[in-house]
Amino acid sequence: MGDSAYTFFEQHQANRGINLEEVKQQLKALKIETPSWGYGDSGTRFKVFKQVGIPRNPFEKLEDAAQVHRVTGACPSVALHIPWDKVEDYDQLRHHAESLGLTLGAINPNLFQEDDYIFGSLCNSNESIRRQAVNHTLECVDIARSTGSSLISLWLADGTNYPGQDNIRERKHRLLASLQELYQALDPHMRLLIEYKFFEPAFYHTDLGDWGMAYNMALKLGPQALVLVDTGHHAQGTNVEQIVAYLLDEQKLGGFHFNSRKYADDDLIVGSVNPYELFLIFYQILDASSATDAGTRQTAANIAYMIDQSHCIEPKIPAMIRSILNVQTQFAKALLINFDAVKQAQEQQDVLAAENAIREAFEFDVTPLLQVVREEMGVPVDPMRAYLQSDYGQRILARGKGGASW
Amino acid sequence: MGDSAYTFFEQHQANRGINLEEVKQQLKALKIETPSWGYGDSGTRFKVFKQVGIPRNPFEKLEDAAQVHRVTGACPSVALHIPWDKVEDYDQLRHHAESLGLTLGAINPNLFQEDDYIFGSLCNSNESIRRQAVNHTLECVDIARSTGSSLISLWLADGTNYPGQDNIRERKHRLLASLQELYQALDPHMRLLIEYKFFEPAFYHTDLGDWGMAYNMALKLGPQALVLVDTGHHAQGTNVEQIVAYLLDEQKLGGFHFNSRKYADDDLIVGSVNPYELFLIFYQILDASSATDAGTRQTAANIAYMIDQSHCIEPKIPAMIRSILNVQTQFAKALLINFDAVKQAQEQQDVLAAENAIREAFEFDVTPLLQVVREEMGVPVDPMRAYLQSDYGQRILARGKGGASW
Amino acid sequence: MGDSAYTFFEQHQANRGINLEEVKQQLKALKIETPSWGYGDSGTRFKVFKQVGIPRNPFEKLEDAAQVHRVTGACPSVALHIPWDKVEDYDQLRHHAESLGLTLGAINPNLFQEDDYIFGSLCNSNESIRRQAVNHTLECVDIARSTGSSLISLWLADGTNYPGQDNIRERKHRLLASLQELYQALDPHMRLLIEYKFFEPAFYHTDLGDWGMAYNMALKLGPQALVLVDTGHHAQGTNVEQIVAYLLDEQKLGGFHFNSRKYADDDLIVGSVNPYELFLIFYQILDASSATDAGTRQTAANIAYMIDQSHCIEPKIPAMIRSILNVQTQFAKALLINFDAVKQAQEQQDVLAAENAIREAFEFDVTPLLQVVREEMGVPVDPMRAYLQSDYGQRILARGKGGASW
Amino acid sequence: MGDSAYTFFEQHQANRGINLEEVKQQLKALKIETPSWGYGDSGTRFKVFKQVGIPRNPFEKLEDAAQVHRVTGACPSVALHIPWDKVEDYDQLRHHAESLGLTLGAINPNLFQEDDYIFGSLCNSNESIRRQAVNHTLECVDIARSTGSSLISLWLADGTNYPGQDNIRERKHRLLASLQELYQALDPHMRLLIEYKFFEPAFYHTDLGDWGMAYNMALKLGPQALVLVDTGHHAQGTNVEQIVAYLLDEQKLGGFHFNSRKYADDDLIVGSVNPYELFLIFYQILDASSATDAGTRQTAANIAYMIDQSHCIEPKIPAMIRSILNVQTQFAKALLINFDAVKQAQEQQDVLAAENAIREAFEFDVTPLLQVVREEMGVPVDPMRAYLQSDYGQRILARGKGGASW
Repeated sequence: MGDSAYTFFEQHQANRGINLEEVKQQLKALKIETPSWGYGDSGTRFKVFKQVGIPRNPFEKLEDAAQVHRVTGACPSVALHIPWDKVEDYDQLRHHAESLGLTLGAINPNLFQEDDYIFGSLCNSNESIRRQAVNHTLECVDIARSTGSSLISLWLADGTNYPGQDNIRERKHRLLASLQELYQALDPHMRLLIEYKFFEPAFYHTDLGDWGMAYNMALKLGPQALVLVDTGHHAQGTNVEQIVAYLLDEQKLGGFHFNSRKYADDDLIVGSVNPYELFLIFYQILDASSATDAGTRQTAANIAYMIDQSHCIEPKIPAMIRSILNVQTQFAKALLINFDAVKQAQEQQDVLAAENAIREAFEFDVTPLLQVVREEMGVPVDPMRAYLQSDYGQRILARGKGGASW
Repeated sequence: MGDSAYTFFEQHQANRGINLEEVKQQLKALKIETPSWGYGDSGTRFKVFKQVGIPRNPFEKLEDAAQVHRVTGACPSVALHIPWDKVEDYDQLRHHAESLGLTLGAINPNLFQEDDYIFGSLCNSNESIRRQAVNHTLECVDIARSTGSSLISLWLADGTNYPGQDNIRERKHRLLASLQELYQALDPHMRLLIEYKFFEPAFYHTDLGDWGMAYNMALKLGPQALVLVDTGHHAQGTNVEQIVAYLLDEQKLGGFHFNSRKYADDDLIVGSVNPYELFLIFYQILDASSATDAGTRQTAANIAYMIDQSHCIEPKIPAMIRSILNVQTQFAKALLINFDAVKQAQEQQDVLAAENAIREAFEFDVTPLLQVVREEMGVPVDPMRAYLQSDYGQRILARGKGGASW
Repeated sequence: MGDSAYTFFEQHQANRGINLEEVKQQLKALKIETPSWGYGDSGTRFKVFKQVGIPRNPFEKLEDAAQVHRVTGACPSVALHIPWDKVEDYDQLRHHAESLGLTLGAINPNLFQEDDYIFGSLCNSNESIRRQAVNHTLECVDIARSTGSSLISLWLADGTNYPGQDNIRERKHRLLASLQELYQALDPHMRLLIEYKFFEPAFYHTDLGDWGMAYNMALKLGPQALVLVDTGHHAQGTNVEQIVAYLLDEQKLGGFHFNSRKYADDDLIVGSVNPYELFLIFYQILDASSATDAGTRQTAANIAYMIDQSHCIEPKIPAMIRSILNVQTQFAKALLINFDAVKQAQEQQDVLAAENAIREAFEFDVTPLLQVVREEMGVPVDPMRAYLQSDYGQRILARGKGGASW
Repeated sequence: MGDSAYTFFEQHQANRGINLEEVKQQLKALKIETPSWGYGDSGTRFKVFKQVGIPRNPFEKLEDAAQVHRVTGACPSVALHIPWDKVEDYDQLRHHAESLGLTLGAINPNLFQEDDYIFGSLCNSNESIRRQAVNHTLECVDIARSTGSSLISLWLADGTNYPGQDNIRERKHRLLASLQELYQALDPHMRLLIEYKFFEPAFYHTDLGDWGMAYNMALKLGPQALVLVDTGHHAQGTNVEQIVAYLLDEQKLGGFHFNSRKYADDDLIVGSVNPYELFLIFYQILDASSATDAGTRQTAANIAYMIDQSHCIEPKIPAMIRSILNVQTQFAKALLINFDAVKQAQEQQDVLAAENAIREAFEFDVTPLLQVVREEMGVPVDPMRAYLQSDYGQRILARGKGGASW
């Protein structure tokens, strides 16, 4: 395809009442943060497959992330996980990022990989371990100051494996107290994103087990606390886009960890299992973007889009590019929804017309659109090919085996 | 077994530090409301199996419910569903109940069986249908006044079947406005119990789809609004007892609809699928009953225990008795938990001891205990046998076939 | 769009090595049977919403089905459900079908709507009820002879609601004996399609609960017995396309009941929940169509494609058309898979390239292709619009309310 | 409790028609194999919590296993995982086992922890990797000869993460060919147990994904191939006991891997999540034990009961003891089922009586029974206390940290 394909596409969309110039602007504005740990070795509990060429330190992780940004133009920031990305001099790391055209993004405290956290961190009944955990989050706020990050992104692995193992209500009280201390330490421009997860690594109860529990904490903490939706952290069948709409309406949606799952928290490439679900999430976000309520519109405008994929068997950098491309594809499709048609069908309670107005946007091939957007952004028209044709993948093999495990 | 069995049991429990006199008091105090519709014909979408002897009107439903109370002594009130139980003269119905030793319990508005509700009731985009639905709930408040009921128990079937069918956020706004009007109409002593359900009859999104959505509504409405937990209304794997603990801690748990499920909302006999789960729910309630927070203790003390079972293939009255007996059994077991032992194990982070302290209570055979409790309450020691040996089941056959469908 | 859109599309596909003439031939050859009961009133256990204009008898159902075939050209046969579609003179029904350009398709015995079947039909421990059920299936074979149908399509609702309710192994023995009697009655050209279902209406165990149980029965019966896959009859997370591939490899896949589900057996419009899954099913079928094994190829060529949707809230005829269009769309996309590229990537164990080779076919907009196919078939380019613009929907309103319930 | 408790219990059971002498014999005969890897460090993909005192080699694992057998008398054999338990001299290992009163049990090939297996083992499209995998299984047969084991217990992690990653049917062909080679190598007295798993570590499709796939392979291989049921390897809601009954009826149930799960393959202590399910599995086994078909009876008699738990946060030896005790408890309860009462209720299609006949056995407290059994077996009446009161747990602390990871 080529320019004529786009001309054709543009004409067709114009006939539908879609202004492609606005669509292109929104596509160009979409920025997706990639995670430093997405470039490291990873796997399942049964096996971590060590690859050749894995970055050996945070600096090299940033170099890999810069490749993703180079070919997509959409990934200017990189999330850090502490202590995985702990360095002596964060200024140095920040400068390294800037020299690569990147900024440092969300700071993710790690509250699950110390032996001390066997029975939990912020919820632990042992006060000194709880103190250690809270201190670690406070340290992360400090790091965020050094790195210029405005987001603290908190996933809490706390929970229990057996009935009675600990007191659920008391753990809730401890959690709130811990989070309040963290919240107090935030600078005014900082936001705390609270993630929830259905299960794993806890197998009986998880202290932040669903959106309601994360939302409730965010509500008690204050306006700088928001909920983070990881698309793989729900019970089977859960309508994730409804949760997105709900949190937007409550002005409590802070961001996403995008990935795919068919079973549990599979952490597969974004958009590889059920692309329609991702599209429907963007439909809800776009719908909220034109809400009558200014707070909802503002919330929708400030969503932090982040990838959280744990590559098991595929090469890291192209897999990350694939995730980014898939996000762009589904976002582009959602931008082609004719919201007037949707609204009219809804008002007439015409189920089939309303369903059709959503699905027809999903069925467009947005390749020509994305190609033109990329051209105009000055990035390769085919980012995957551009990466594969570069020698970067070859060059990093010199790093050998045994790089960083997420 | 007999008295010696109880003596033996009492001794053993005393050795464990359990005061059976207190246990017996709590067992005697447990009251469980049965639903009028549990005595009517019911089935699945594929077939309602019509039984001989089904009550033909609300008065006969009360008569059947009185049998359950007669043999258990635990079911003094009956929930009504309007308009299924609509009568011209609610005073007459109330007097009939009283003459049977019963009171009229929760009033359940029916917002799903009018043709007008095809696209929803309280959330419907059509204002006049919404008005009709709100008016129906207001009528139910009036009926509650007539029947002396203090509970409005609201299950909302509203939702959509397809993406885009209606605007999720706007439906949420309509729901809140509708509920606010209902809430305003409540007398000071009344409580509004808001039920949630994962899916069915809506298959894409359900407006009150999980505890978080019901809780959020209750929070916005005020202290008289509480959440109702139907044990069959969750996604697979959901930790129901955690939700119970959570809502108790927030002082927002209003009541239960007890039933069992293996798959979806199967509405089977309570305690027939996973009795341990029911026991663990009572563990959380009892734990909250001695919380340091007075509000939580009070919330736990005021829980409305109700059955909501839809008998498909079994005779109604004995199936209801079976559900009641199973609730009593699991409650009795939970009362045998040694909470000091639990607490000590939790403080020592001794996982196996904590788990054991819970499970060991579950493994007791509480038959001798329940027999003595019944003896002291003046009801039959074996309620099921007492019912089956009465001629009530035979007598109602004269009603013929074709009674009320729930 | 129009001819130039197709020219453009054709060129692009030719560049990818896809011969659109072959694709078009396969699209024209795709025939999908619609079910008579899909035109009747239906609903959930909570409410059947009665629509105006519902057919009042099997003859009118055929007339509605003829509309779907008229605008799609893809639905020349109609499945019957006995006794819902019982008539005195099947020759007359057959001639009526033929006069409408239709044939009568699969005969579906109904073994769940007699009061006698409360504890099962072919598995019932009561021999006389089992006899009645077997006789009904034998009657259906006779009806198939009259109607010229070659398929007996058997969904068995049998199961239990409680542990111990009946003996699982003995029910299995009874089932096999019942099916053997049915199998013996088949004419040589007839096939018995055995459907399985995870749950509902049985809530503890279902006698044909998964593909393995249906497959095992088919294996014991013989070559005329095959498995029918209803896309809504699986546990959450089940990889349906793997089952399809597996049964094709065993030469035991007989047909499909297409519909969509997000939760349980929701029976929604085909392709409305997860269109990618439907595409992946067709990918497996097409892959098997070129298997080295002739038996597998032949099995794939003889699949009976059938719709089994239970419309709850949408008008029946256009909803059926939508299901057909969605099947065609996903089949068309699957036909655009470059199987050489897939194979090459698989041989190189290049995960990303292999995944891409599948997904990229899904992302094409097949609208211009389907439009040309329809033009060449002599049916409306936009079947939905053609139907809506006809006055058929208006004319049937004269039937009034209260037509046939599936 | 004590002797009088048992006297009382025996009397009560005698009144129900249960002969406790037979029950005791069956309880004494129940042998459960523990896995060597259950004594090693383990965890989730997020963290393996290293404990002090973990065995450092297969010899020390056997010593820990001997403790479990010492206090329970029920665990005389230990399963090995190769290469985790690879030693130079298996005679030496065997003699070490015998000196501890143990035998070596099932040999478990490990086909998932080599880097080469990133895309599968027995199903891998790469012939040389497949050869390596088959050779490993053949080596395991040799090891079984050395260790005197009669069981090869095969769990296959093979699968794919993305649609199209590999050809599902061809992987099936490769699997069958691989297994046939393994099967040919078996000695006549050996059995091959084929395990299946719903998902993990593969997240799109698993080559042996359900019982039907394992059964089908076993059927093609021959009578020495049987299916192994891991109680944690099913989709949510799956009726595991039905699968058990089904496989028994087909004489293809070879054994169990017992553990508990609430969500996915959580590998928790047996009987800690839903004890009723374990009881119902034993109900089906006991029912098959008196089947009219001799083959089914024989299959039931030869089931290999094995634990497969991965302890995350609890001390290994007492957790294993707890699993054993829980298996004994549920087996004991199942032995108290009055099968005549069940049969009579089933014949009368009395749902409530049949359900009651099962559940009432579950509700007995079998503590006095198990105490007497243990007394008669000459093992401690309270095995857990006996272990905790011994100094073994203290002595092994000298091993330090950093023992074997499963």
